[in-house]
Amino acid sequence: MKKYNFNAGPSILPREVIENTAKQILDFNGSGLSLMEISHRAKDFQPVVDESVALFKELLDIPEGYSIIFLGGGASLQFMQIPANFLIKKAAYVNSGVWAKKAIKEAKHFGEVIEIASSADANYTFYPKGFESKVPADVDYLHICTNNTIYGTEIRKELDVNVPLIADMSSDIMSRPIDVSKYKAIYAGAQKNISMAGVTVIIVKDDELGKAPRELPTMMDYRTHVDKGSMFNTPPVVPIYSMMENLRWLKKNGGLEAADKRAHERAEALYTEIDRNKLFKGTVENDSRSLMNICFVMNDEYAELEKPFLEFATERGMVGVKGHRSVGGFRASCYNAMTMEGVNALVQAMKDFEAKY
Amino acid sequence: MKKYNFNAGPSILPREVIENTAKQILDFNGSGLSLMEISHRAKDFQPVVDESVALFKELLDIPEGYSIIFLGGGASLQFMQIPANFLIKKAAYVNSGVWAKKAIKEAKHFGEVIEIASSADANYTFYPKGFESKVPADVDYLHICTNNTIYGTEIRKELDVNVPLIADMSSDIMSRPIDVSKYKAIYAGAQKNISMAGVTVIIVKDDELGKAPRELPTMMDYRTHVDKGSMFNTPPVVPIYSMMENLRWLKKNGGLEAADKRAHERAEALYTEIDRNKLFKGTVENDSRSLMNICFVMNDEYAELEKPFLEFATERGMVGVKGHRSVGGFRASCYNAMTMEGVNALVQAMKDFEAKY
Repeated sequence: MKKYNFNAGPSILPREVIENTAKQILDFNGSGLSLMEISHRAKDFQPVVDESVALFKELLDIPEGYSIIFLGGGASLQFMQIPANFLIKKAAYVNSGVWAKKAIKEAKHFGEVIEIASSADANYTFYPKGFESKVPADVDYLHICTNNTIYGTEIRKELDVNVPLIADMSSDIMSRPIDVSKYKAIYAGAQKNISMAGVTVIIVKDDELGKAPRELPTMMDYRTHVDKGSMFNTPPVVPIYSMMENLRWLKKNGGLEAADKRAHERAEALYTEIDRNKLFKGTVENDSRSLMNICFVMNDEYAELEKPFLEFATERGMVGVKGHRSVGGFRASCYNAMTMEGVNALVQAMKDFEAKY
Repeated sequence: MKKYNFNAGPSILPREVIENTAKQILDFNGSGLSLMEISHRAKDFQPVVDESVALFKELLDIPEGYSIIFLGGGASLQFMQIPANFLIKKAAYVNSGVWAKKAIKEAKHFGEVIEIASSADANYTFYPKGFESKVPADVDYLHICTNNTIYGTEIRKELDVNVPLIADMSSDIMSRPIDVSKYKAIYAGAQKNISMAGVTVIIVKDDELGKAPRELPTMMDYRTHVDKGSMFNTPPVVPIYSMMENLRWLKKNGGLEAADKRAHERAEALYTEIDRNKLFKGTVENDSRSLMNICFVMNDEYAELEKPFLEFATERGMVGVKGHRSVGGFRASCYNAMTMEGVNALVQAMKDFEAKY
């Protein structure tokens, strides 16, 4: 049976990215060696890094003066590495979910942190509003997590603030165009819209580096990795390779404007059905709804149908639609590689299940 | 033409590990999803982590009271994470090569570091000797890098010291039995004897954690990862999977005693030829010779044959035998997956090349 992968991350990747990666693992560029066992210094691997950097620059329209680096350790490591490099005196953070809250916790090791907005008291059912005018002018940066995977909220627009931004875009990067010039840094774990798990992408504004008043261990200093082109130490070769394949796929499929359009189409189909179907309701305020992670639960009077619907959907090939334990119900994550076919299959399952009751 | 992979890292892996990984990338356990796109919380992935932990425990005969964790970021990140967790007041380090020196540099951010022995002045052509009796009794640990990939030196024995050890075993772990009870911690980047690049293995003694007098960012504290079974954040799923496959292969092939025996056989064949052949000489003092990285250069009177021999060997399928720029000449890295067939092919190439002159 055909499977539809709604996993929240690691998550769906285009089939051709998967097949090309498997092929290179069996024989890298006809070298007779596996992609798993080539040196990162091999002459055939540097072009993989270079093409990945070039594709990020092209797809995100990254202006001059920014560097793109690829590190291990995940976005969670960035929760400390970002303030270690950029927090000079104080920084503003928006508390929009569990991961944003974790970022706040780590930043406090490095300086004063002002939580300028939070939706924690509402179990993060909306993206905090109205904070753009409340950012103190003297903070080093405003940190936001643009999409909250667990809760299904997103702030899918350019913020109008008078300080530089830093964003954790782990779960919506590469799904829409962004104005990189507004940011001191953007970071993202790869395992949603970029690649398999195991590589983290960080875009940094070069002339903002080296200003923080602390001695940094070598691996913590972004300049180490900028200077060495992500080769200070052995990079995660295979995850970087599949990243390049995925960026190629994204470019071939129209880049970020087309990705944005497809994200809107997928989400609209699902939210329309959630709002129409008598069995289900969304968990998030309408203007905070994420296009990436679409969360919904049973309406109260049908609460006992939660497990049966999960089984019903699973029987039809849906994978990963169980909601996060903090929210319950269901979560359909619709990253770049999710097709309308997959979305329509889920919508049809919701309709057919409704017809039984 | 058959290729023989002498890369220093990332490096040779058993063909069945490569093929099984490629197969799971196309379809993970018959799920219809790729290993690249399954959730790390999927019920089929936890067993991969559990089996990897169990195989490390079994193969290395790890006693009770130790935890095994899998992180991203490489051994270079451990150069800071080790002292962050274990350096209370002062630590002793052996400076046996460039990577050991980097570990020393990072440790100085966290406390007093005593360099008790060094072979830097001799361009690391031997493993520092006689330091075991010179370790101050009041250090928190003695740090060693057991194998120096660049220079081809190794200390392949249990040290007789009266303080706990911490070892970077990135390039010789899983090639011989070790007495883990002597260590506070052992760490290793995976890309030599464990897996593809992208995961780092750390073995820590549980009751030594939490003693360092500093507040650690969450990701830096080993307890975070011990408590969450390496799942505090998304782990590198694919590198962990190929690690499990490689550990299975190692067990099936006789475990660490057999690996040690094979390492001795490979190295003996190569060093014997290096010492016999009029064209070549070893670069390392005899009692420091590594079984993992076998470094040699042309004898002075044949210096002009360096490039021709490299071409000759390459034509016969040898890959990665060019020496590191710090040493020059040649380096044949012989990790667990290197066969005697590969070694014999290189030896034969050396003999046949000699016959031409």
